[in-house]
Amino acid sequence: MKFGYFDDANKEYVIQTPKTPYPWINYLGNEQFFGLISNTAGGYSFYRDARLRRLTRYRYNNVPLDNGGRYFYVHDEGDYWTPGWMPVKRDLDFYECRHGLGYTSITGERNGLKVNQLAFVPLGFNAEVYRVKVSNVSDSPKRVSLFSYLEFCLWNAHDDMTNFQRNLSISEVEIEDSVIYHKTEYRERRNHYAYYSVNRRIDGFDTDRDTFLGAFNGLDTPQVASEGKSGNSVASGWSPIASHGIHLELAPGEEQSLIFMLGYVENPQEEKWESLNVINKKPAKAMIEAFATDAQVDSALADLAAYWDGLLGKYSIQSSDDKLSLMVNIWNPYQCMVTFNMSRSASYFESGIGRGMGFRDSNQDLLGFVHQIPDRARERIIDIASTQFDDGGAYHQYQPLTKQGNNEVGSGFNDDPLWLITGTAAYIKETGDYGILDEDVPFDSGRQGSATLFEHLKRSFDHVTNNLGPHGLPLIGRADWNDCLNLNCFSEEPGESFQTTTNLDGKTAESVFIAGLFVFAGPDYAELARRRGLEDEATRAEREIENMRKITIEHGFDGDWFLRAYDYHGEKIGSRENEEGQIFIEPQGFCVMAGIGVEEGLAEKALNSVRDRLETDYGIMLQQPAYSKYYLNLGEISTYPPGYKENAGIFCHNNPWVTIAETVIGRGDRAFETYAKIAPAYLEDISEVHRMEPYVYSQMIAGRDAVREGEAKNSWLTGTAAWNYVAITQAILGIQPDYDGLRIDPCIPQAWDGYKITRSFRGAEYKISIQNPDHVSKGVKSVTVDGSPIESNVLPVFEAGSSHEVVVVLG
Amino acid sequence: MKFGYFDDANKEYVIQTPKTPYPWINYLGNEQFFGLISNTAGGYSFYRDARLRRLTRYRYNNVPLDNGGRYFYVHDEGDYWTPGWMPVKRDLDFYECRHGLGYTSITGERNGLKVNQLAFVPLGFNAEVYRVKVSNVSDSPKRVSLFSYLEFCLWNAHDDMTNFQRNLSISEVEIEDSVIYHKTEYRERRNHYAYYSVNRRIDGFDTDRDTFLGAFNGLDTPQVASEGKSGNSVASGWSPIASHGIHLELAPGEEQSLIFMLGYVENPQEEKWESLNVINKKPAKAMIEAFATDAQVDSALADLAAYWDGLLGKYSIQSSDDKLSLMVNIWNPYQCMVTFNMSRSASYFESGIGRGMGFRDSNQDLLGFVHQIPDRARERIIDIASTQFDDGGAYHQYQPLTKQGNNEVGSGFNDDPLWLITGTAAYIKETGDYGILDEDVPFDSGRQGSATLFEHLKRSFDHVTNNLGPHGLPLIGRADWNDCLNLNCFSEEPGESFQTTTNLDGKTAESVFIAGLFVFAGPDYAELARRRGLEDEATRAEREIENMRKITIEHGFDGDWFLRAYDYHGEKIGSRENEEGQIFIEPQGFCVMAGIGVEEGLAEKALNSVRDRLETDYGIMLQQPAYSKYYLNLGEISTYPPGYKENAGIFCHNNPWVTIAETVIGRGDRAFETYAKIAPAYLEDISEVHRMEPYVYSQMIAGRDAVREGEAKNSWLTGTAAWNYVAITQAILGIQPDYDGLRIDPCIPQAWDGYKITRSFRGAEYKISIQNPDHVSKGVKSVTVDGSPIESNVLPVFEAGSSHEVVVVLG
Repeated sequence: MKFGYFDDANKEYVIQTPKTPYPWINYLGNEQFFGLISNTAGGYSFYRDARLRRLTRYRYNNVPLDNGGRYFYVHDEGDYWTPGWMPVKRDLDFYECRHGLGYTSITGERNGLKVNQLAFVPLGFNAEVYRVKVSNVSDSPKRVSLFSYLEFCLWNAHDDMTNFQRNLSISEVEIEDSVIYHKTEYRERRNHYAYYSVNRRIDGFDTDRDTFLGAFNGLDTPQVASEGKSGNSVASGWSPIASHGIHLELAPGEEQSLIFMLGYVENPQEEKWESLNVINKKPAKAMIEAFATDAQVDSALADLAAYWDGLLGKYSIQSSDDKLSLMVNIWNPYQCMVTFNMSRSASYFESGIGRGMGFRDSNQDLLGFVHQIPDRARERIIDIASTQFDDGGAYHQYQPLTKQGNNEVGSGFNDDPLWLITGTAAYIKETGDYGILDEDVPFDSGRQGSATLFEHLKRSFDHVTNNLGPHGLPLIGRADWNDCLNLNCFSEEPGESFQTTTNLDGKTAESVFIAGLFVFAGPDYAELARRRGLEDEATRAEREIENMRKITIEHGFDGDWFLRAYDYHGEKIGSRENEEGQIFIEPQGFCVMAGIGVEEGLAEKALNSVRDRLETDYGIMLQQPAYSKYYLNLGEISTYPPGYKENAGIFCHNNPWVTIAETVIGRGDRAFETYAKIAPAYLEDISEVHRMEPYVYSQMIAGRDAVREGEAKNSWLTGTAAWNYVAITQAILGIQPDYDGLRIDPCIPQAWDGYKITRSFRGAEYKISIQNPDHVSKGVKSVTVDGSPIESNVLPVFEAGSSHEVVVVLG
Repeated sequence: MKFGYFDDANKEYVIQTPKTPYPWINYLGNEQFFGLISNTAGGYSFYRDARLRRLTRYRYNNVPLDNGGRYFYVHDEGDYWTPGWMPVKRDLDFYECRHGLGYTSITGERNGLKVNQLAFVPLGFNAEVYRVKVSNVSDSPKRVSLFSYLEFCLWNAHDDMTNFQRNLSISEVEIEDSVIYHKTEYRERRNHYAYYSVNRRIDGFDTDRDTFLGAFNGLDTPQVASEGKSGNSVASGWSPIASHGIHLELAPGEEQSLIFMLGYVENPQEEKWESLNVINKKPAKAMIEAFATDAQVDSALADLAAYWDGLLGKYSIQSSDDKLSLMVNIWNPYQCMVTFNMSRSASYFESGIGRGMGFRDSNQDLLGFVHQIPDRARERIIDIASTQFDDGGAYHQYQPLTKQGNNEVGSGFNDDPLWLITGTAAYIKETGDYGILDEDVPFDSGRQGSATLFEHLKRSFDHVTNNLGPHGLPLIGRADWNDCLNLNCFSEEPGESFQTTTNLDGKTAESVFIAGLFVFAGPDYAELARRRGLEDEATRAEREIENMRKITIEHGFDGDWFLRAYDYHGEKIGSRENEEGQIFIEPQGFCVMAGIGVEEGLAEKALNSVRDRLETDYGIMLQQPAYSKYYLNLGEISTYPPGYKENAGIFCHNNPWVTIAETVIGRGDRAFETYAKIAPAYLEDISEVHRMEPYVYSQMIAGRDAVREGEAKNSWLTGTAAWNYVAITQAILGIQPDYDGLRIDPCIPQAWDGYKITRSFRGAEYKISIQNPDHVSKGVKSVTVDGSPIESNVLPVFEAGSSHEVVVVLG
């Protein structure tokens, strides 16, 4: 069952009913100011940090769910309603929500009145702009009132929801002209305030929540909207809100446009005040002036569209499969960019108050956006590497504001260091910027000296070989991907963190996954060493990699698939010897991606085992059989009820590893099958089961053992986006940035006739036509560039600004 | 304006409308299991720790406010409603809420159906019992359905509201017979579950919130209640609830009673399971059986009433002032006991997730409950003292579960140590148990060795004299009472804690308040030393006290009142030299309580200044003039908007210090005037202004500078309860436990004719008649005990179990 449709021409997902199975959201903002907005206008806004600079209040897991946002109440002769249906839930004659790239437009119509609210964050501004268009589509004149509404958060979102004995006494506002200023704590140490403006004279206002709502009322029945009259309340303590009250007279057919703006302003210390306790409003007024007219709004919207065209234009496909095209051209790269902006901080599942960027996460996210904004990728690589320790180990998380490693979680996640090699290599392949390797980068933010980035990669590489276990496989440490297999933890205390509790010495438990990752990432390290003229180091590295490859086959293969690990007692995990958890997805994907066992036929065996034992209609489960009880020696993975999350859920992040692995052994049909199984556009028709947005990936889909099999959770912020982007654009469609050019090596379903890709690479444009006359899955028979055949399937690097026609024939 | 009335015969406050100015709440539980319940049945339950063992979910600062609790929905032929009005808010023909001692009874009536829900925690059980009586008060038979509802919290209340990416996948329940078991995380490391039972066959159930409510619905419009039919849903992830569906047929005039029970069970590790993933329900079933009949419920209610009669019977008054009587006999000691149980953890303003008991708070709270439960007071004194450092300093907070000092906040609050002397002395005066002084008590929970409790008191005393500033006054450290005057902090960072940030060395800023406290508490230390035969130590202490008294007069008096402090720069605070904050309440109260300046006439001057400069219709403000801006050298006090909290709010905790101080200089009329000004019963008539419960004290009432002058906040958990109890029962009514007996020394309004007190003291009963024929405020003319005159106004200690008639004539 569908709840909307893809409008590819406008790059929008159009939702046709407010009653989606879950709030379906979008993100506003690309730089410093961000907003989350649902299809019923719920959500919230923040400046840079969703915990420390939350502008508006949002209550997670509330009843009703998604109750709170930036609302516009219409009062029409005693009747009142909201164009997004929620929160008033009055029946609408027409409803539509269009989630576009960086904007959301919601339209509701009732009794001859049409209201459209369009929300976006203009480039270059720390503000959200809402254009509200009110149209009289009836035959009679209409006198209506419009009441804006949003509730301010007292900046620190965590403190805001815990420290009431203080917070209910401190809120302060100012009201001047049509602008409401929220200035709580500005009189003391804050130098920032928020404002909510509208570009016309108001007839009333409210800043005190209780006055606006009336006692005992919810957002569905606010007294002001019900009575059609503002209370003109001035907040003093309790809960500050902003509401403008505006009377409108509309002739039949008339449309009026109002521009609201929720802005964030920081003032220098010496310019904080206009007079005693009167804030300096100049910067706010300048921002408001920039959005005083519809023409200004239109122009900003055009800029935003151009911005996204620029980013998404770096890679686009023309194919006969519309769903494939819209995933590749629009929604998958869009999600990659949102994930870059948010990391794992703020979604409808992430409450925005957890702190820190993951070392492992950030390196993987980068794979999805490096071609869109290589400069920001470069900056992020340096940030990440700066938190590495001088022994190659890494803080598992770091703070985006301070760029310091997070002591609470600490280090000891032994896969972390390797991801830095993969992330850096991807950046260099995309850009050719070897100079990044010479950057002087601190260890532990300078507490342990510094070295070149290349030296950081060496320490990453060596951190694995310096931490090997009894079988010669890498020690797992606290955990590897995805933090839930905790082999040195042995926790019996409720609520204790599995990631930060290490009860045992950690010198036994080994990870086959890290072995695979080492063999996968290692060659990039060797290649980079060689390109720096360090032939000996390259050779040494290759020897280590080859050694690990052998050990993995010797001690990491279990007959039909790769083992997952050895536990603290030296017992196998992910083996047919186990009663539960006999086979895991991660080592199958990663070992094959690394090429381990391909020649020996083990790779195919492993992937067949995945297909036979882990695959479901909804994707590939993490392991089987699910753990039915808690295993002290395994940790968090066994805490989840069977079928959810890491305990045999379909943890989408690792599904593309299997997809990529299938391309390694040339099985294009299987590769695309596994790709399409979890690609959201292909799930649109079963939205009532999947429940999450059909335009973005979710972190998890409930597996076969779950009561709610096929139901997704944790949409938007997941490494799934980046890895599936890699899987489809590079592994399947076969456009692979490489050190010396753009490698073309598709692995596709045999039935495909071909497709066209436009790829921007190091400033040049490649218009690539892939033709598959022989209906093969893999194998490049010929390549012509601008009409001339070339020998290699690696397209050369061209002059920036040039454009080239490429024809690739498979066979 | 009143919203109810005191029913003194039943020891209840009766609320006659659900539309109180704020939720008016009550507490259930006295031992390990606790609940908060509002007059509209909102609230939540927990076992021991409101953060770590939260049984039911509650959303603070929600809209509508107080939306969530243990609800009973009635479905009556298409109409559905709730007897507490909220959350459905259907008009009721009759509504009444009775908050009693440890129970709350709510009655609603609509369309000929009357429903009463009575909630309490039975003594000896870790459970809440709800007896629901449904009566057909119409002339026709009725067929109705009753749906219980509560929402489970996933145990850790903080994690529950932040960690959705995990939590929405983990919840699990079992349903067997009429009992719903909530067992989230029981399959892993928890050994505890909750259950919700009813003592009859059910016709349906729900455990999945979304099914019960229906999509997009709030608690006001649950689908199940609206349709009158349970969904029989079994939760798997998302949000687990418990709802029983019961059809009832009622003849005209018939009443049926149902007994629901929300219980908490811990199982030993080896008895966790009945079979694989089926929990051991035996302990739950035993508890349920104990409340299967109305007779069992009645008996438990009788036990509860007897428990409270025992506690409150320790001190009671007969007077012609009903409000005075009900405060002294019922509500003030009741609040003291609740504060003992809760410390500052869980109220409608304290979110229950802050951790730790205050060193200072706990010692003061003890003054209010020591006569009710001296054994628990003893235990608490030892707990508190065990967190003291060996230099006499103290952790500012400690964890009630681990009884360890709280490292996050640390120490350096230089008034803390002295409160231990005051608390211990109060305990010994009440009990005569000098043995407590010989207890071996650890320093820093054993990390710094141990010593006798007496030695702890010595270190407390010496900690002051070892930390004196330039004027010989005590150094303030991080802060003294009430944490908001931060003279060594100088914070410019938003959100930074004023209490844990110490930017400067702290060797200059001095506190006159601590000086007063030293002179107040010191004599008890000297007396205890003397009684241990340490005459030299007693003399030394007295010399130090006398010295501090002189220094306080010399450097701590500002002409008409006591200074508050000297800041980091050696400048006066609370002086006429200041532009703002010229006079503070705390040193006036405490220095006079200590007797400083009484002989010299300075005390009277100081108290007159309080009256003239700080007193309002609603109580005495903390300081004047309010700080209009942030002062870097003062810290948190200047962060509040003028009139709120410590910035010139009426911070009720310190008002009784002035009351007691007035009795020190013999002004009984003033003493009672200041007492009555903030005593909640006297504010009942202005409940629309005061807003908080008229039966308990609030922490703060907005002062004259505030927009909302007279409005209270932070009701229930405040040191105000204990100090006002001391002020009225000891200072005004003059029944003062002392080392060698019960001192009788009233200081009352001259107009009073007299009153009678019944006081249990060291096991004997004293029936004391105070007579005031000459209409004086102070001065005992004669005392007779059992008909015989005695010379002293200290009644001797009698044999436990004996009863004595005492007549005291003032004059």
